[in-house]
Amino acid sequence: MSKLIKPRTLKGFRDYLPELMIPREKIIDTAKRVYRSYGFTPIDTPVLEHLEILTGKGSEETDRQMYSFNDHGDRPVGMRFDLTIPLARFAAQHIATLGTPFKRYHIAPVWRGENPQAGRYREFLQCDFDTIGTESVIADIETGLVIHDLLDAIGIQDFTIKINNRQILSGLLQKYDLSDKSVPILRCLDKLDKIGAEAVSREMQAAAEVTAEQADQVLGLATISGDPTSMLQQTQTLVAGNELGENGVQRLRELVVAFEDVGIAKQRYQIDVSIARGLDYYTGVIFETTLGSLPSIGSVCSGGRYDNLAGLYTKQHLPGIGASLGLDRLIAAMESLELLPKSRTVAPLMIAYFDAERRAEYLAISRILRSAGIGVELYPDAKKLGAQLKYADSRGFRFAVIAGSDELDRGTCQIKNLATKQSEELNWKETPVDFVARVSEMLDDV
Amino acid sequence: MSKLIKPRTLKGFRDYLPELMIPREKIIDTAKRVYRSYGFTPIDTPVLEHLEILTGKGSEETDRQMYSFNDHGDRPVGMRFDLTIPLARFAAQHIATLGTPFKRYHIAPVWRGENPQAGRYREFLQCDFDTIGTESVIADIETGLVIHDLLDAIGIQDFTIKINNRQILSGLLQKYDLSDKSVPILRCLDKLDKIGAEAVSREMQAAAEVTAEQADQVLGLATISGDPTSMLQQTQTLVAGNELGENGVQRLRELVVAFEDVGIAKQRYQIDVSIARGLDYYTGVIFETTLGSLPSIGSVCSGGRYDNLAGLYTKQHLPGIGASLGLDRLIAAMESLELLPKSRTVAPLMIAYFDAERRAEYLAISRILRSAGIGVELYPDAKKLGAQLKYADSRGFRFAVIAGSDELDRGTCQIKNLATKQSEELNWKETPVDFVARVSEMLDDV
Repeated sequence: MSKLIKPRTLKGFRDYLPELMIPREKIIDTAKRVYRSYGFTPIDTPVLEHLEILTGKGSEETDRQMYSFNDHGDRPVGMRFDLTIPLARFAAQHIATLGTPFKRYHIAPVWRGENPQAGRYREFLQCDFDTIGTESVIADIETGLVIHDLLDAIGIQDFTIKINNRQILSGLLQKYDLSDKSVPILRCLDKLDKIGAEAVSREMQAAAEVTAEQADQVLGLATISGDPTSMLQQTQTLVAGNELGENGVQRLRELVVAFEDVGIAKQRYQIDVSIARGLDYYTGVIFETTLGSLPSIGSVCSGGRYDNLAGLYTKQHLPGIGASLGLDRLIAAMESLELLPKSRTVAPLMIAYFDAERRAEYLAISRILRSAGIGVELYPDAKKLGAQLKYADSRGFRFAVIAGSDELDRGTCQIKNLATKQSEELNWKETPVDFVARVSEMLDDV
Repeated sequence: MSKLIKPRTLKGFRDYLPELMIPREKIIDTAKRVYRSYGFTPIDTPVLEHLEILTGKGSEETDRQMYSFNDHGDRPVGMRFDLTIPLARFAAQHIATLGTPFKRYHIAPVWRGENPQAGRYREFLQCDFDTIGTESVIADIETGLVIHDLLDAIGIQDFTIKINNRQILSGLLQKYDLSDKSVPILRCLDKLDKIGAEAVSREMQAAAEVTAEQADQVLGLATISGDPTSMLQQTQTLVAGNELGENGVQRLRELVVAFEDVGIAKQRYQIDVSIARGLDYYTGVIFETTLGSLPSIGSVCSGGRYDNLAGLYTKQHLPGIGASLGLDRLIAAMESLELLPKSRTVAPLMIAYFDAERRAEYLAISRILRSAGIGVELYPDAKKLGAQLKYADSRGFRFAVIAGSDELDRGTCQIKNLATKQSEELNWKETPVDFVARVSEMLDDV
């Protein structure tokens, strides 16, 4: 016999066992349901793309981390590292067929060969939704509402959607004639949370060669506080006279008004005019979402508006807006907040199996329950009841269906609650409708 | 400005646009629901594996077609070409934690760099379910029932599950002392459907060096016909005296009896003792599923029982049974049978949008409907009604919600059926519960 190959996953990769995959699928299903309720349709794109499609963006970091190789036809290919570039390529290729506005969601894995850290893997799932081909503030509003509804539907109570509009900062830089220094200024500003206003001011003066006065003018954004109405007013004062900045304030105002109108709880959103989310991609509204009980994990759902999605691949100007749920990060957070269910089974009932002679009856009970949409696992081997119940416990089944020959002769079975150890005898043979109704009731009760 | 990169997918790959992705997701959801109802739990494994894990099986064809390369750490890695090898590796690695029986499903893409043919791609989805760690006939029966329930739930009426047990043929070969020639004999026998019994007999004599009499004894399997009971009897006569063969007939009988017991329609399953499904992998029951209206497309759901899943990676003996839905093949079949819905939207209603001044009311209508689980897309731009309705038609929305300032002043909107062009005015503001109830009713009616 040949030598065994050691079963193992690659460094930075992992298997999803049922106890992690069950909640993962549940969240994915929830995301799909919420996206669909707003009219976002599913698409899929290949994992492999022509290398030049993926490197077109020209970010050194993503290029370095990308998994790339030559395929059987010696074509340079790469594995996608996000879902945005494939969307841009997809839109450039198909938008004439699809028409606009085009609203899509895409839930799929991406790969980055970065050094794995705690809770971060080289393969992870992205859950993106985007609206392409409209500059309407309706799309801004609905993107924010999707983020809200999504976290709410997942069962997160305590979260805050931070909102900003990039035009405010751009306008402010225009106003003070600092637009050509926006990249280093933004880079400094992104550190505000970490190092504070004074240090940022010093860095700006050093890195962006601005005066102390100019740095303070930009940092005026960081001092804005109060309720949304008051913050909008202060921001308006800061950018007053600059069209771009005033437009940014106005769009932010319309977003806030809409959130109020539809009754989003006030503690769930917050203006934060200092967030920038990267350097040059976003051009309008920006979203970041933090968890009140675990802010350190960072944003679990982020996005924003961009001017031109697919400029690398088409001359057609395609504005859009979108956001992405960081599913693996969210699951890690829910795990540490103990918000994840512990079950390792998707079926609530296990039928114990004793006697091959009575197989038809066990199959009949399974069939009655499954036809009513109730999941059951029929234990496959006629082992001792103790062993079968031990298995049921270890898997997390909620009920065991137990029927020996006495029960089967009567056309009944015991439904045993595995938590309370209480049993109830029900007749499945003569009154299958009542049987199903009672089992449903017991499942609802737990 | 730099030169545009031509947006295109790699040869043998394709994008899934909404009109194809919507039915695809629906079938995936159906598969999950059916798998779960039998207690199969989801798992996931990485797309990339250590190359030696994937090449361990040593099939020249899969090795040649595999996408492989060296990763950033210069490790030889490969993209999985099926979900069975990852399952074997996964089981060897985790079965001590998981315990047996272990029932899992795995729905995920795989890659094969084969020459693309019509309807076949280099990236395609597999939908596998397997039961590991039991030799029970219950698992044989339930695997068959899952296949049945799956196709039924997808909406296929006319299908046949062909069943066989590999032990019958193995027993027959044992009986005539031909076990050492089983590989070439099986290879010939697999051509029976294509070239007929006489040609297969000639090939067997030439390729496997058997006598004409021996070839006829093996081909006796091909002449078996009649109802299941009679076929089982004829088969029993053929293998009589050989334990392995008789055991195969007995297990096949138990499967057929169970199908009868639970009331599976007779035309939906059929014994076919000549199907072998490959050469050496399967060791017990075998399933193939063909569509009555499109047999030429081949089997859309196949599988069977195997003796030892993970022998390459562990000394632990892991018997199991499983099957796989050929989703892309099934979708291609449903497309040509016109069983696929044509919609390019997942939301049934589109709300036309006229007036930014009344934005709050449009948002309110959306919110009322979405809260009741009814999907609506709010058109983002205040274009002319004609343009918005044209969009609604092209996307396949079933209803448009139309509310100008007159309706909004009254707290109402028109619900227009886009097929019949009939409208109904409903009050969403004062009687939101009735509003939602009536809209649900209209959706059910269509």
